[in-house]
Amino acid sequence: MEPYLVISADCHAGLPTEQYRAYVDPDQRAAFDEMLDARAQAAAARVSNEFADRWVEEQAEGLSGAWDGQRRDKELDADGVCAEVIFPDADAVTGFTGAPFGAGIGSTGRLDPTLALAGARAHNRWLAELCAESPVRRVGAAIVPVLDDPAAAVQEVEWAVANGLRAVMIPAMWQPYPAYHDPRYDVFWAACAAAELPVHIHSGPADHDEYGQYIGIYLTEVRWWAARPLWFMIWSGVFERHPTLKLGITEAGCYWANDLLWHMDTRYVGAHTSKKMNRDGIAGHLSMKPSEYFDRNCFVGASNLEVMELERRYMIGVGNILWGNDFPHPEGTWPHTREWLRKLYHDIPIDETRRMLGLNAAEIYQFDVDALRARAEEIGPTPTELGQVDDAANEAAWQHAKERGRFWLQ
Amino acid sequence: MEPYLVISADCHAGLPTEQYRAYVDPDQRAAFDEMLDARAQAAAARVSNEFADRWVEEQAEGLSGAWDGQRRDKELDADGVCAEVIFPDADAVTGFTGAPFGAGIGSTGRLDPTLALAGARAHNRWLAELCAESPVRRVGAAIVPVLDDPAAAVQEVEWAVANGLRAVMIPAMWQPYPAYHDPRYDVFWAACAAAELPVHIHSGPADHDEYGQYIGIYLTEVRWWAARPLWFMIWSGVFERHPTLKLGITEAGCYWANDLLWHMDTRYVGAHTSKKMNRDGIAGHLSMKPSEYFDRNCFVGASNLEVMELERRYMIGVGNILWGNDFPHPEGTWPHTREWLRKLYHDIPIDETRRMLGLNAAEIYQFDVDALRARAEEIGPTPTELGQVDDAANEAAWQHAKERGRFWLQ
Repeated sequence: MEPYLVISADCHAGLPTEQYRAYVDPDQRAAFDEMLDARAQAAAARVSNEFADRWVEEQAEGLSGAWDGQRRDKELDADGVCAEVIFPDADAVTGFTGAPFGAGIGSTGRLDPTLALAGARAHNRWLAELCAESPVRRVGAAIVPVLDDPAAAVQEVEWAVANGLRAVMIPAMWQPYPAYHDPRYDVFWAACAAAELPVHIHSGPADHDEYGQYIGIYLTEVRWWAARPLWFMIWSGVFERHPTLKLGITEAGCYWANDLLWHMDTRYVGAHTSKKMNRDGIAGHLSMKPSEYFDRNCFVGASNLEVMELERRYMIGVGNILWGNDFPHPEGTWPHTREWLRKLYHDIPIDETRRMLGLNAAEIYQFDVDALRARAEEIGPTPTELGQVDDAANEAAWQHAKERGRFWLQ
Repeated sequence: MEPYLVISADCHAGLPTEQYRAYVDPDQRAAFDEMLDARAQAAAARVSNEFADRWVEEQAEGLSGAWDGQRRDKELDADGVCAEVIFPDADAVTGFTGAPFGAGIGSTGRLDPTLALAGARAHNRWLAELCAESPVRRVGAAIVPVLDDPAAAVQEVEWAVANGLRAVMIPAMWQPYPAYHDPRYDVFWAACAAAELPVHIHSGPADHDEYGQYIGIYLTEVRWWAARPLWFMIWSGVFERHPTLKLGITEAGCYWANDLLWHMDTRYVGAHTSKKMNRDGIAGHLSMKPSEYFDRNCFVGASNLEVMELERRYMIGVGNILWGNDFPHPEGTWPHTREWLRKLYHDIPIDETRRMLGLNAAEIYQFDVDALRARAEEIGPTPTELGQVDDAANEAAWQHAKERGRFWLQ
């Protein structure tokens, strides 16, 4: 049986932060050096954590794949992954490879806009070099701080296209700027749609000021804050105005997506609970149901799925789910992806597995599948290796869930 | 078969706003009159809505049960409901019975604290009279604006107890005050726990400033904002410090509760995705799993449940779910509760139905079940009327879901 062509829709890369210096505009280098000092102080104050310390020690070689392209390919080969989509901030434990000025995943509207742009540009310049080494295998997501100046963001999109970056990442949280339903962002959506660059929210930011010292609150909410732009953009007609725009929510899981679609669709058609509202005010400006925009315009870069999430795939949409190994983060499946895949996919039908593990990503990011095929033949896990020994039985076992699908539409 | 003793854990009562004048402290009456003028102007500008207008016209008599106790009992009798828990703001369509100064369900930390307290007191005084008419049947929830002055809130709790009100409602949203994990609220939690008054969040407020004109965004988020205090209080140890405190989330459904419990429990025990965090920082101050606090200290006043929500009851906890008809709101089941119950509960085991429709509420609010029994015999729907004709078959059909229960704990 043909091996899987596995694409990780959620990987990370970044230089050790101090090495970004050469990529930072000269007039921002003083600020850059100040930032390095502040980081060094923060690092000294860091509370030690056994799991994290062991991780950094044991994976030291592999972690250098964060910036070393050869090492990177070697790690991904070992994991059975033949192509990848690359986000910033490779080190999720100590943060020593963070994009300059906190311009990476953690960037929000609270960051100084000049520094946000300077940090984004420095990272994007380096990332373009990394991707140029291996354009068949690597899709880089440019950091685009869209909040303060959407016209400048359009220029970054143009720069990204000209330099071979084929996706963009925007801040998960827009506060204190207007929300993503605001028309100010339309020039940016239009530019991304025209360039066929999927826009991403990557999980990370949350309403930190509210949590005190309680990490549990952060963990409980963080995925909600990452997913939030979805319903802001769907309900406000962004995808009605930009029908080819693509939006991905990355590393926020997807267990919430089926209830979200159920909730939006039932309100859209006028559920009993919302009849007292004017339906025109809810849906008058939309030509499709929320789940139809989701299918056409959105996807989840769900990374390492939970069993429970796989069970819900017919409601979420098999075509909307993209797997990822989150290399080189410890919360992902690297360097044990093959074991994780076997554990989670052994009872999933093969054609669905092919889509979630790679073909969905290939389509969205326009990977050259023919060019990747040889490597997949060499390193890709086979269905047998994933324990998928009786595909007909697996198909049959899921038939009921498949027929039920989006039950609220029936 | 014994009829159901049905208790609505979500009803609303309120005077036509202008009639609250006599209950407002004399030194707030000038402000009260100003508020009435502003309300009249807003009412004149209201956009007409066919559903809402027809509702107000067709239900005019029944709606007077918002403030007329005799009419109220007549409506609830007809609905098969023999006791109730009463929240403010009886008219959810035009708002003409809103508590003074917007001190009711919509109250947040943005409201002027003096007016919030004045409005709460005026409503509470009237509500105490309404409940005193029929203390066996009516439990009133005092409005307690806890944010600005927790010590004053304790005094309101004492006033509530002295005047026969047996529950309290606090604002769903604390902003710009500290979140509900803050120690400043401990005196208030302690007072509620000591007085055995369940604390409620009632769904309504949300992050309105962010939504522009998009009602769909509001509908998608509003239940999340209502449920949010749950995880703030669980993770921060409020129930560790106040083991007898009860918290109810009312009219926010409960379809989100199973995933919330799964999410919190798996992070509590150290899920793969959160191992990089210090577990001590997550759970070091807690002696139980989040779902155990939920079972001991929390409940959902889920009102009219969806089929999907009933399907999830073994994960949420049959003992944690309280039904309500939301009288006299149009999004509830009144005046067709009997039909709704038949539609939704026909395949649910009888003993579980008894708990969700009444016995859970009886326990939490300490209703005198013996005193209610005669009325239940007279007006309560029977299992046969709900279509529960073969209880053994119903039990058997749910056996698998029951055994699966909270699968993440197994």
